[in-house]
Amino acid sequence: MQYPKPIAKLIEGFSRLPGIGPKTASRLAFYVLDMKEDDVLDFAKALVHAKRDLTYCSVCHSITDSDPCQICDDAHRDQTTICVVQESRDLIAMEKMREYTGLYHVLHGSISPMDGIGPEDIKVAELIKRLQENGQVEEVIIATNPTIEGEATAMYISRLIKPTGIKVTRLAHGLPVGGDLEYADEVTLSKAIEGRREL
Amino acid sequence: MQYPKPIAKLIEGFSRLPGIGPKTASRLAFYVLDMKEDDVLDFAKALVHAKRDLTYCSVCHSITDSDPCQICDDAHRDQTTICVVQESRDLIAMEKMREYTGLYHVLHGSISPMDGIGPEDIKVAELIKRLQENGQVEEVIIATNPTIEGEATAMYISRLIKPTGIKVTRLAHGLPVGGDLEYADEVTLSKAIEGRREL
Repeated sequence: MQYPKPIAKLIEGFSRLPGIGPKTASRLAFYVLDMKEDDVLDFAKALVHAKRDLTYCSVCHSITDSDPCQICDDAHRDQTTICVVQESRDLIAMEKMREYTGLYHVLHGSISPMDGIGPEDIKVAELIKRLQENGQVEEVIIATNPTIEGEATAMYISRLIKPTGIKVTRLAHGLPVGGDLEYADEVTLSKAIEGRREL
Repeated sequence: MQYPKPIAKLIEGFSRLPGIGPKTASRLAFYVLDMKEDDVLDFAKALVHAKRDLTYCSVCHSITDSDPCQICDDAHRDQTTICVVQESRDLIAMEKMREYTGLYHVLHGSISPMDGIGPEDIKVAELIKRLQENGQVEEVIIATNPTIEGEATAMYISRLIKPTGIKVTRLAHGLPVGGDLEYADEVTLSKAIEGRREL
């Protein structure tokens, strides 16, 4: 006997999500069967609404339900600084810090020749155009991930922007706060030494 | 800035599922945004249909889309044997083996005084009633989990059934196939010794 069809379809739906194998998918599907019907309906509606109602901001390319997004539309934010991130999630992480008051630019990926992703596949041209059209920007903070792809993307963008005279900075590398020196990898340690600051 | 509302709701929906924390929920939600709209709709429909169309078999209490379920309704199956499992998922696991041709009874849990779950909270009374009403059954195989709760449930059920003269058996304990003796725990090893068979 196979699973009854409705549950088989639900398991298949869960399996399509990243990091969810067949075992977890079946556990989640059976959990859904025990949930209240209203909660399941809410969840189903949330899926459809998230897909249908969300769009990308035409200025910063972040995910949003209004265009331009809340941040680009906020005149109180510092219009002279743009923080470049790989994904909308990274923007949210930056916002959680509550210290950065400038604008953002979401690349939607990083340059990765191994995966066939070149500069034209991410929102680099849009960033350059934005900088040209908007004369206010004084600093671009590149906050791509501290990975090979993220570094390559950072290098590529900084080379494009530098000739315009706009200051280009990169988030500091070093030991994560609360981390343990013993478990830090060599590259992180070497970056931490390189970036050491006087006390 | 918080997440835009549609995605916040979706993240909340995912967080309600077991084993999915806020970080995973947000990863899944953003993945959904990149999925094809049709796939998202199918998934949403699967959620609602699974919840609405599935019911429990009035005979064996397994999850089913028809009552009685496919197995209880199949006259070719061995009507003299009932395998007692904790959950519908366990029934599916047994069926995947393709060797057992008898019927099932799903308890929907196990006796666990620590969690306040007594025999009246699981489908034990229904099993006894089923055995009394159906004179055909010759053997009840108790396939509850090899945990303290599963064992307690097995003992409890076997004491109830034994006076009726029906044979009660329990799945064998021992080393899992493909396992490593070195990593087997003491209790499993002791059960494996106890249940050793002549070659």
